[in-house]
Amino acid sequence: MQTLLTSALVAAAALAAPRPPNIVLLFVDDLGYGDLGFTGHPSTLTPALDELAAGGMRLTSWYTAYPVCSASRAALLTGRQPPRVGMPGVINSLSAGGLPLNETTIADHLRAGGYKTLAIGKWHQGQQPQYLPRERGFDRFLGLPFSVDDGEGFASNCTPPAGAAAASVSAGGGVAVGSSAFTAPPRAPPAAVQRVGLGPSLPLPSIRQDNGSSVIVAQPTDLVPLTEQWWNFTRQFLRDFAAEPLFAYVAFGHVHTATPNVPGRQYAGCAFQGTTARGAFGDALAEVDWFAAQLLAELRALALEENTLLLFVSDNGPSLRWGLSAGSVGPFVGAAAAFENGTGYTNTGKGSTWEGGIRMPAFAYWKGRVAPGSHSGEVVSTMDVLPAALKLAGLPPKRGVVDGRASLADILLGRGGSAHNFLPFYNGYYGNVSTEMYAARAGRYKAHWITGPGLGGGRWPTDAHAAAELWRHDPPLLFDVQADPSEMFPLAPDQLPPTLLAELRDAKAAADEGMTLRAITADFGFEWALCCGVGCAAPCDNCTCANVPLPLP
Amino acid sequence: MQTLLTSALVAAAALAAPRPPNIVLLFVDDLGYGDLGFTGHPSTLTPALDELAAGGMRLTSWYTAYPVCSASRAALLTGRQPPRVGMPGVINSLSAGGLPLNETTIADHLRAGGYKTLAIGKWHQGQQPQYLPRERGFDRFLGLPFSVDDGEGFASNCTPPAGAAAASVSAGGGVAVGSSAFTAPPRAPPAAVQRVGLGPSLPLPSIRQDNGSSVIVAQPTDLVPLTEQWWNFTRQFLRDFAAEPLFAYVAFGHVHTATPNVPGRQYAGCAFQGTTARGAFGDALAEVDWFAAQLLAELRALALEENTLLLFVSDNGPSLRWGLSAGSVGPFVGAAAAFENGTGYTNTGKGSTWEGGIRMPAFAYWKGRVAPGSHSGEVVSTMDVLPAALKLAGLPPKRGVVDGRASLADILLGRGGSAHNFLPFYNGYYGNVSTEMYAARAGRYKAHWITGPGLGGGRWPTDAHAAAELWRHDPPLLFDVQADPSEMFPLAPDQLPPTLLAELRDAKAAADEGMTLRAITADFGFEWALCCGVGCAAPCDNCTCANVPLPLP
Repeated sequence: MQTLLTSALVAAAALAAPRPPNIVLLFVDDLGYGDLGFTGHPSTLTPALDELAAGGMRLTSWYTAYPVCSASRAALLTGRQPPRVGMPGVINSLSAGGLPLNETTIADHLRAGGYKTLAIGKWHQGQQPQYLPRERGFDRFLGLPFSVDDGEGFASNCTPPAGAAAASVSAGGGVAVGSSAFTAPPRAPPAAVQRVGLGPSLPLPSIRQDNGSSVIVAQPTDLVPLTEQWWNFTRQFLRDFAAEPLFAYVAFGHVHTATPNVPGRQYAGCAFQGTTARGAFGDALAEVDWFAAQLLAELRALALEENTLLLFVSDNGPSLRWGLSAGSVGPFVGAAAAFENGTGYTNTGKGSTWEGGIRMPAFAYWKGRVAPGSHSGEVVSTMDVLPAALKLAGLPPKRGVVDGRASLADILLGRGGSAHNFLPFYNGYYGNVSTEMYAARAGRYKAHWITGPGLGGGRWPTDAHAAAELWRHDPPLLFDVQADPSEMFPLAPDQLPPTLLAELRDAKAAADEGMTLRAITADFGFEWALCCGVGCAAPCDNCTCANVPLPLP
Repeated sequence: MQTLLTSALVAAAALAAPRPPNIVLLFVDDLGYGDLGFTGHPSTLTPALDELAAGGMRLTSWYTAYPVCSASRAALLTGRQPPRVGMPGVINSLSAGGLPLNETTIADHLRAGGYKTLAIGKWHQGQQPQYLPRERGFDRFLGLPFSVDDGEGFASNCTPPAGAAAASVSAGGGVAVGSSAFTAPPRAPPAAVQRVGLGPSLPLPSIRQDNGSSVIVAQPTDLVPLTEQWWNFTRQFLRDFAAEPLFAYVAFGHVHTATPNVPGRQYAGCAFQGTTARGAFGDALAEVDWFAAQLLAELRALALEENTLLLFVSDNGPSLRWGLSAGSVGPFVGAAAAFENGTGYTNTGKGSTWEGGIRMPAFAYWKGRVAPGSHSGEVVSTMDVLPAALKLAGLPPKRGVVDGRASLADILLGRGGSAHNFLPFYNGYYGNVSTEMYAARAGRYKAHWITGPGLGGGRWPTDAHAAAELWRHDPPLLFDVQADPSEMFPLAPDQLPPTLLAELRDAKAAADEGMTLRAITADFGFEWALCCGVGCAAPCDNCTCANVPLPLP
């Protein structure tokens, strides 16, 4: 871990940079572990992210706290287990509820400590005014209230047609992706893949909050220029507040699958369309890579690179529902699940607590502080970001029950230490949110007490995680996920340390006993929509507008 | 591809280094695509190989010519398709046959062109004296005549017990692999995995050929110090002939699974035992990584780094038969195969022409010539090594039918070009070797006409690839392996370019018509064993000896 070197750097930095560090979090949506160059994808290459990962610390056992979007983000923002927070899986475009108002967020704490705070992109913590970022600790926000597959966005045409002459070179530069005597056809998802409806939907709104105002920029939203707009807004934030401590939470819309009216269920800026070997998914990821490259260049231009911790991680594993428009779980195929569900297909991505749903591609980059070329296999969690950020900022810890650990900061700085000897995973949606542990990572082991299919394998959301879809295991199904990351070979009793099962049973009982399901007071059904600046009883289609002020709470 | 930069480097190098380049080929046994750090494995890290890969060109569409050992190596040595060569899959420890004597090898050609030639490690091209490396173009040889799972080797004890205090740091240095309150137990393959017998076996011999002599160094072979011995022999070769053009073919015994008498079916030097998170497999791979690090250091010490092309590749995908002692196919899970074979498990590794059996982890490193940080997705083959090496050496091309392409050299040097617009894959063992194509890569597409399970999925070797185990596809099963490397979504007719099926049919017919199965004149049954320097009619157990001269042909 190059401890001596790092310690020297830390000492030098402490003298040179007494101000709290900037913290920039790149949070990608539904990005699978195996979708990046540095995590082994053979045709989608991500040169900027690969270079940042190589220049910092790769975190190979980073877990999300929950395998779906809203709950994963609630855990990131609060440092707490989602059932404790009261976030029922996913908020949809017709939900009245949001992140409960008595929760404090990482942005609340950092802003109170003197930081300027920015939220970009997918929010997904409630769309009513009281739940939007401005009221949850963020000085500025430009983004979407929910997922790009829920509200209906659209993809405008690029003129002239993009990518026409660039099909054999990826956007990242310097990457040949294979010539061919056989031409590539227009691509479409496999015909066998069918949309599982989320019920009535409405045009996707785009929202900006800044200088006391809150407006719907457009409804519906054009997805094509979106990421570039977000970068421009991010850059302005960095420039405006370069002299102050900054927290930027960049929650990409990429690479979540979009609504059926978007070709290929993916989108990208005109500069990226048709530029990668992998097709629409690769183009979207190339745009994420571009954003990271722009960000690094801007941090350097502002002389902030050595005072900025950059974290990159996904919110949960890929949805396997939409064929080639979705991502890859990488090594985490959950091979044993194929036998369990009898389909011959594992479905261990988003929505499941098999590794494919919860093990995230992740790295930390911080020039002069995080050792270049380092790796850590320590078990860390998205819930650790809040306590680690407060520690790095020199701010008091959050009070009350915090499930994340500040020791993530020590790990990043090469000071050793362990974040989680026992990390529980809960699951379920809406009325089926469970306070009984589905699975846990314990040292090199992973225990499953409840298993079920991910999105695409079950009949989510209406009846997934009903009892009939779940398998219960007593004693737990056990894997050595360091030797067997594919969860292919359940361990036999004679392969276990003698006390392991008893230790796991006790740890689970203690954690479950302390896990109180926050009463979900707001309704997360299909009852409220944000429609051109006013709420309406759903369904309310045909919301078409631009620059409409939103009420402030 | 940084063409301008590379061209300038090439021009400079041409002035500075008129002598033919050294060529060093690191050829790993049964290493899966997903087993390395730079190909995405989360717990087994390979820092030296990762650094070499990052300092050179990663080749993400490198295919072996055949999915099992002897045939893959015959294709490497001859540049020709294995059925054309007459190599029936795998030579076992009781086979009288070998690579047919009228074939010329890459070593024959390079030696004739003034190179000094070295073979290290697993030979697997015949064990009778006329088939051993000395007669096939190699000046020196230290290694094994066949696989470590065929002849019975053994693993000596390390004193003091290795790895006792090093369990949380990998051998490569600087890599934390996760601490744990839960201790790791001794590991064993899952009880459900059973040995599929290869018939009678005998003690594994180790052979050295040098200065006109040929001796059995030891029978049986102690596997523990083996890789270190091989490195010492390689280093001596480099030092002895540093002033001359060199060809070194380093065919690791790692990470092929060993015989049941070796704990965990893997082995490693004492310095590596118990040092990695992944267990015995990770320890073995750490030793490969160490060899690569030693090699680079020695090339630098001898001032040969800028005159040496270093190629790294595997011989075929991992055997999935022996549980955790075997490797990982990475993204190439062949997900559609799970539905086909009805087992719920894909078995697409070694022995199959699904990507997991034939797509290899690969890179090229050549300081000043191969652009650092470059990638190529061009379709290349192990068969290309011979013609590319002759081109780089400035030697005349091999005459007769050569299936490999010298354009691999252009790709490595950043001069562009395509190696294979249509690359066929054949398969089968012994009497079932097929001259009908199983599969082919064509541009971004992969076509399967015949599919079957890999080793561990079928009843290999006695009756695998009999008709009952194979599925035939007409029209071929088609995948876009750039967008869908997991071979998860077969393409529907409306997803194909209009002429693709006709083009594929014509290309297959032409290739199959030109594919003559070389009469397999030597017997590859269970009839001849190398037993302490003499051949004996098999079975002949209890061969125990050291330093016994072998007859020269």
